[in-house]
Amino acid sequence: MQPETLEDEAERLDSASAATDLRHLFALPPGMTYLDGNSLGALPAHVPAVVQDAVRRQWGQDLISSWNEHGWWEAPTRVGERIAPLIGAAPGQVVVGDSTSVQLFQLARAAGALRPGSRVLLTDPGSFPTDLYVLGGVAQDLGWELVTADPDEVPSVLARRGDVGLVALSHVDFRTGRLWDLPRVTAAAHAAGALTLWDLSHSAGAVPIGLDENRVDLAVGCGYKYLNGGPGAPAFAYVAQRHQSGLAPAIRGWHGHREPFAMSAHYVPADGVGRARIGSPPLLSMLALEAALDVFDHVGIDAVRARSLSLTGFALRCAATLTPELRPVTPVEDARRGSQVSFAHPQAYGLVRALVARGVVGDYREPGLLRLGVAAPYLSHADLLGAFVQVRAVLDAGEQRPLDVDRLPVT
Amino acid sequence: MQPETLEDEAERLDSASAATDLRHLFALPPGMTYLDGNSLGALPAHVPAVVQDAVRRQWGQDLISSWNEHGWWEAPTRVGERIAPLIGAAPGQVVVGDSTSVQLFQLARAAGALRPGSRVLLTDPGSFPTDLYVLGGVAQDLGWELVTADPDEVPSVLARRGDVGLVALSHVDFRTGRLWDLPRVTAAAHAAGALTLWDLSHSAGAVPIGLDENRVDLAVGCGYKYLNGGPGAPAFAYVAQRHQSGLAPAIRGWHGHREPFAMSAHYVPADGVGRARIGSPPLLSMLALEAALDVFDHVGIDAVRARSLSLTGFALRCAATLTPELRPVTPVEDARRGSQVSFAHPQAYGLVRALVARGVVGDYREPGLLRLGVAAPYLSHADLLGAFVQVRAVLDAGEQRPLDVDRLPVT
Repeated sequence: MQPETLEDEAERLDSASAATDLRHLFALPPGMTYLDGNSLGALPAHVPAVVQDAVRRQWGQDLISSWNEHGWWEAPTRVGERIAPLIGAAPGQVVVGDSTSVQLFQLARAAGALRPGSRVLLTDPGSFPTDLYVLGGVAQDLGWELVTADPDEVPSVLARRGDVGLVALSHVDFRTGRLWDLPRVTAAAHAAGALTLWDLSHSAGAVPIGLDENRVDLAVGCGYKYLNGGPGAPAFAYVAQRHQSGLAPAIRGWHGHREPFAMSAHYVPADGVGRARIGSPPLLSMLALEAALDVFDHVGIDAVRARSLSLTGFALRCAATLTPELRPVTPVEDARRGSQVSFAHPQAYGLVRALVARGVVGDYREPGLLRLGVAAPYLSHADLLGAFVQVRAVLDAGEQRPLDVDRLPVT
Repeated sequence: MQPETLEDEAERLDSASAATDLRHLFALPPGMTYLDGNSLGALPAHVPAVVQDAVRRQWGQDLISSWNEHGWWEAPTRVGERIAPLIGAAPGQVVVGDSTSVQLFQLARAAGALRPGSRVLLTDPGSFPTDLYVLGGVAQDLGWELVTADPDEVPSVLARRGDVGLVALSHVDFRTGRLWDLPRVTAAAHAAGALTLWDLSHSAGAVPIGLDENRVDLAVGCGYKYLNGGPGAPAFAYVAQRHQSGLAPAIRGWHGHREPFAMSAHYVPADGVGRARIGSPPLLSMLALEAALDVFDHVGIDAVRARSLSLTGFALRCAATLTPELRPVTPVEDARRGSQVSFAHPQAYGLVRALVARGVVGDYREPGLLRLGVAAPYLSHADLLGAFVQVRAVLDAGEQRPLDVDRLPVT
């Protein structure tokens, strides 16, 4: 019997997972294989009409009354409740608004105030830059030291020193796609008396997270990657119920006030997670995100994860067979892999550009990485095989030029 | 000769100012007199198509490449340059993104770092609540005292004490519509060695501000009031050229990094005002604001101001004649008036509700104020006369009920 070809495997796996193929819900350009949903998620097909209604009817016709009539005022908590089940949070713990950077600042500062005797903020040196920058600023504000350690080493660092107040990590490494061990690290932090703050930007909407189950303290995440909320969609913040009454926001916005319309000169934070709100949220972007979350009415997060693992596992097999000169930096073990596959190659940047010209859109990340995001709801195994066939063709034709052009700013 | 009636005066003034009537550029609901543009500006008629293009083509079809191809990356500074001439700023000093609260926090904190020997943050006890809350938090971060004084008294407070590091005030009082003396207060602050931070939320797009001319140090303002940027449109921040190289952002976002795509672990702020950027801005909201600013291609800010003063002055005369039981709290002198008229009345809340039912949309502000915003580009003298005829009718019919219903959340 002949070994199964990649073509046959793709067909078999696509048939087996046909129930979770939601490609028809998205408005993707014809002829493109979009592997950058970990940077900007694709447009769900029903979202333009929702945004148009928000602009023409809610803003244009109903104007200021929309704060009540169309629920603008409650949008940050309402959209938060839509995200909550995707990240394993019971109701009343998630709020949406501002950018991930601002949410991270706000929660990290508040965490510091909850651990007044501590002196160290522990993070990963490979975190997304904004996390390192923001956390560095927070550590300075708190008079703490910013210490970095590989997330796998965090438990031993915690065991060695007793002055860590906050462990702030990304759940998935944005370069390699490595999924860190959230349950183990969170438990170790708690054993050492520290709080945890997880950045879920590269896992929310792709990986079940179990925030409550693992007793995570605080979390933030991005609305425009696997949640498909649109460019610069507002971020979300999770504050575990038990920390809410003690949370002291550093940025004291009036939307987080207990009685915002009393217009009191005195700041009294709202009960509950609403105190993490700051100012007026960008509603057009917020309502686009809210509508985009409808995609998850059609598929549970566990099914998304199963599909994603099947896709990324297959992608790694395609690469091993078709493009062995690409060195995978993404773990092969399912339990350690997020929802992307990344490869080192000396001409990775030129490779990304040449692939874009062939309709395969991934992105480049320093240092020297080809990064392919795998948003499971709108990708198939056939798409991934097709992508690696194109990588092979680019390499065979030498279309990957050396780094001689301006870098693409992609986020 | 008979005295001129209000009807005749409205007709005469509307004829005289016909060149600055831009009502045709807006998509206002038929039959409504909209006097809440100081809370949420009306929809410019061309904006829905721009937003739809941003959603369908830029996000949906061009996806991640839009960061380059459609200038998403440069949007914060590009839109800032559109706002600059409205507030009297030369190029290179304005950036757009985040909410006013976040921008205020970011600039107030940075101001504190620029005045390390100081001990007082001086503001107005009547400021918009979020300003008081945010500034209170900043003062706490800096270890300073938050001191409040009526803006007219600020120069004498400054002369009395030498430890004020920052004077942070709103240009226009959000309740009364009083326009504070920015040139005098700014000069007094500088004479005392303090910096100034002006919140222009209620003046940008309505009043010429002259930031450069008056050597203002820092300013923030709202995108969704007189700039008509849409619900929760991002805010703007102004940093005078001379302070940019010393500005140390408290929230160190990667969009403000000198080389964001180097993905360096080390934070080095960008040269210029770009360092005030934080994270990914909400692009749908940002692009709506950008398009809305086209309105100001049709009329200069000085002409908007002249029209606004004519309208608000006429509104005060209408009120004096038709509804003398309303007590105006807005100054009659042009030089002290922003672009709204506010009145105290014991049943102000019921009055606002009854007026809405009659198609006249203003808003209520504690304590006991009817607030009518006058966005000059889309309002006429006839509109204002019509509004006060309705106020008269409500009062005559006793339609203003006592405060017995939930308050409208309006921002």
